[in-house]
Amino acid sequence: MSNSLSDDYTEKGKGGVALRSLDAFFNPRSVAVIGATETLGFGHVPTKNILSHQGVKTYLVNIKGGKVMGVDVFRSVRELPEVVDLAVIMVPSGAVIEVIKECAEKGVRHVIIESAGFSETGEEGARLEREVVKIARANGMRIIGPNCVGVVNTSNMFTTADVDVAILVKGGVAFVAQSGVFGTALVDRACSEGLGLSKVVTLGNKCDVDEVDVVEYLADDEETKVIGLYVEGVKPGRGKKMIEVFKRTSAKKPILVLKSGRTEAGSRAVRSHTGSLAGSDKVFDAAIKQSGAIRVESIDELFYTAMVLASQPLPPDGGVAILTNSGSLGAMMCDELETLGLKLATLLPETINGLRKAAPPWASCANPVDVGPAVVESAMPAVELLGSDPNVGAIVMIFAIPGIVSSPRYFNADLTPFFEILGETASRTGKPTVVLGFGDERIIKMAESGFKKKQIPVLRNLTLTAKAIAALYKYKQIKGGSK
Amino acid sequence: MSNSLSDDYTEKGKGGVALRSLDAFFNPRSVAVIGATETLGFGHVPTKNILSHQGVKTYLVNIKGGKVMGVDVFRSVRELPEVVDLAVIMVPSGAVIEVIKECAEKGVRHVIIESAGFSETGEEGARLEREVVKIARANGMRIIGPNCVGVVNTSNMFTTADVDVAILVKGGVAFVAQSGVFGTALVDRACSEGLGLSKVVTLGNKCDVDEVDVVEYLADDEETKVIGLYVEGVKPGRGKKMIEVFKRTSAKKPILVLKSGRTEAGSRAVRSHTGSLAGSDKVFDAAIKQSGAIRVESIDELFYTAMVLASQPLPPDGGVAILTNSGSLGAMMCDELETLGLKLATLLPETINGLRKAAPPWASCANPVDVGPAVVESAMPAVELLGSDPNVGAIVMIFAIPGIVSSPRYFNADLTPFFEILGETASRTGKPTVVLGFGDERIIKMAESGFKKKQIPVLRNLTLTAKAIAALYKYKQIKGGSK
Repeated sequence: MSNSLSDDYTEKGKGGVALRSLDAFFNPRSVAVIGATETLGFGHVPTKNILSHQGVKTYLVNIKGGKVMGVDVFRSVRELPEVVDLAVIMVPSGAVIEVIKECAEKGVRHVIIESAGFSETGEEGARLEREVVKIARANGMRIIGPNCVGVVNTSNMFTTADVDVAILVKGGVAFVAQSGVFGTALVDRACSEGLGLSKVVTLGNKCDVDEVDVVEYLADDEETKVIGLYVEGVKPGRGKKMIEVFKRTSAKKPILVLKSGRTEAGSRAVRSHTGSLAGSDKVFDAAIKQSGAIRVESIDELFYTAMVLASQPLPPDGGVAILTNSGSLGAMMCDELETLGLKLATLLPETINGLRKAAPPWASCANPVDVGPAVVESAMPAVELLGSDPNVGAIVMIFAIPGIVSSPRYFNADLTPFFEILGETASRTGKPTVVLGFGDERIIKMAESGFKKKQIPVLRNLTLTAKAIAALYKYKQIKGGSK
Repeated sequence: MSNSLSDDYTEKGKGGVALRSLDAFFNPRSVAVIGATETLGFGHVPTKNILSHQGVKTYLVNIKGGKVMGVDVFRSVRELPEVVDLAVIMVPSGAVIEVIKECAEKGVRHVIIESAGFSETGEEGARLEREVVKIARANGMRIIGPNCVGVVNTSNMFTTADVDVAILVKGGVAFVAQSGVFGTALVDRACSEGLGLSKVVTLGNKCDVDEVDVVEYLADDEETKVIGLYVEGVKPGRGKKMIEVFKRTSAKKPILVLKSGRTEAGSRAVRSHTGSLAGSDKVFDAAIKQSGAIRVESIDELFYTAMVLASQPLPPDGGVAILTNSGSLGAMMCDELETLGLKLATLLPETINGLRKAAPPWASCANPVDVGPAVVESAMPAVELLGSDPNVGAIVMIFAIPGIVSSPRYFNADLTPFFEILGETASRTGKPTVVLGFGDERIIKMAESGFKKKQIPVLRNLTLTAKAIAALYKYKQIKGGSK
């Protein structure tokens, strides 16, 4: 038995009754926070985050009444002076049905249920969840959750999640996660590593809205340049629609998909986590390939590939050029790129001649271009030369600059301006550029801050750098094929 | 034509003439720095580092004489008042032969040639290098280099390399790298990430001392618990000796091997980097398997696997137990572990019952154990229960704790004491434990500092965490097999 509305909505969609847009989840003009609480624990942070948002009219609702965070509380949705665009429910699961009924009566059509205690806990919870779905369906309501933390939208800084609003970074990556804990951690990591987000959605038990709906919405979202999905299972019957929506969306922007439950152990784990049926990995894999989405193998790959796809242009024709100050890391990068099926650029004779003039005699001017200790002098002309070589489609720069250069006990140099100028040079080439920083963390941080101005990502993991570059080429092919 | 002494030395070794130990490279009582210089650039940092070392009698040598860094300079090795244990040569390549001759005459038997401009630059350089080898051979000298930065020894803090001595962290990992730039970057990274080092050697062109010699030496080095090698190619004729030495050494301590030149592009790159012949990867792989060393696939895997092997005990019988506060990350970890051929522990009924008592009703008490938001309350009893379950061989803890917990704008909690107590609990179990931190960097840093006391590593990459755990099981098998 399906406890999902999705299929029915899809059917209705087909039959001509338009699906209600998800937009009110991200851009509500008014919100009711039901189960609003000042008590530290579940519900506190969403209450605080929604309440402190200036652009959204917020009503707090709690059966106990009184005041929460200094604001008068309504005892019921019925008492609200207007029909809110969105209700966020955080009451115990046993009270959710009553609240949903009130929302339905009031005319509220978008609801996020953050409360846990539904199908993930067993039969009684599943029964409750079916009841929720029934009411929603009868009233044309759309529901995210239950068992989630809802959404983050950086374009208006609206969020229903347990995240630190003050540190959210705007950008082009949208993440769709299943559980709230993981979605929150993904947002935290993005904030910590300076990955710019557009929107984040945690779907929880997916009683109605699922990743297919969200991708369909994000396809037209101007802020979103890359969609990253973490999926534990696709609801039965949604495969065809998924392929259709992903195909249409992939023609506009890349979709990265990480799916767990690939193995027997993983499959058991997702079953007990969100009740998801991982299904056959081969079937899923074939569907993803057909859909034009890009499957990634790990959460770290999802994260950094999204970062690179969101910030870099697609490569023109040509192979990868490596500029390095470490021959060893250059050789390792060659291995990784070739293993991923990428070609190293064959540099034009004039490029090689130019490099010979720009670098000391002992530098290696083939590809990889290894300028060794002459990196500060030679990197800029090298990037210019590589950038203007038509055989070069993408540039990887590898910096393993000794820590003594920046150490206050030795040379105490600030390399930030060097990296900044190099970033400008690379950016002017119009070719995608990714930097691998290896070694001293202080210098890598200088690279990050120098390259940031031109949105050139600095990664620390060699394999993931290669994989991100490979994804640029792969998406170019997908986009070309979908025209 | 071989420009390597190694084979000859090996032959001599077989014939009964003992090889001169490498010990003087790491523990010299006296050192001559030849080409000592105050000028910023090549040679400055080694001069400064060696000179400022209190336990080593240092003589500066420079044909120009005068004073360097306030110290009187000898014009030649001949003028030195004693036969030094070690000479470090940093003069231009053209002057090296003369210096080597002087060292030979003087009776110096250990020489590090940091100067570049030898076989890596072409035929003329190769000729010079053969000449160096000839003199060394005739005088029973051992040579590291040329084209390297020599050694780091944290037990006496002696180094001939371009590293910041003040931040070196003592520990059980020895790295052997080929080039100086990469070796230095590896040391820098270790310092930045708190990886404790015992010794680091950069071998450069390997005209005499190669990785086989170094592994043989490190096998008996008490400080070294794990040996991590980066190799571009094995010198012709050394394969058999390599297998023999690695086999003997692997019975005592794990050897991790990263080799580049796996692919055609990588193979071309190493040829132009250190003139190494990458050789057939299949042959190398078979040799490594036979030798009991563990081959790793990336520099990041080498780094973190070394970190885990050096700090954790080998697992007793039993599978892997996962404790997590994110079901998603738990499921991903299951996938990774199973893909690597590891088994998840089947928990005893009493463990599961204990977990049910220790965790809230909604927690998942199978393996992975997912305690969700109840992580602070439930993690400690959970670790104790997993630790005492005989079916558990190793524990992976995954923390994806929301950043708001530590954010000054929200709960401002310091979780360091929590992690510290958890580390003590995990350590008492006697089972290897690795932590994966995901999300907010401030909290991951708290985890690092809390777990540090019991040397439990905190990693940030899920795949590499799984691979490091797999290496523990693999080395257990290797060690068991070699008894």
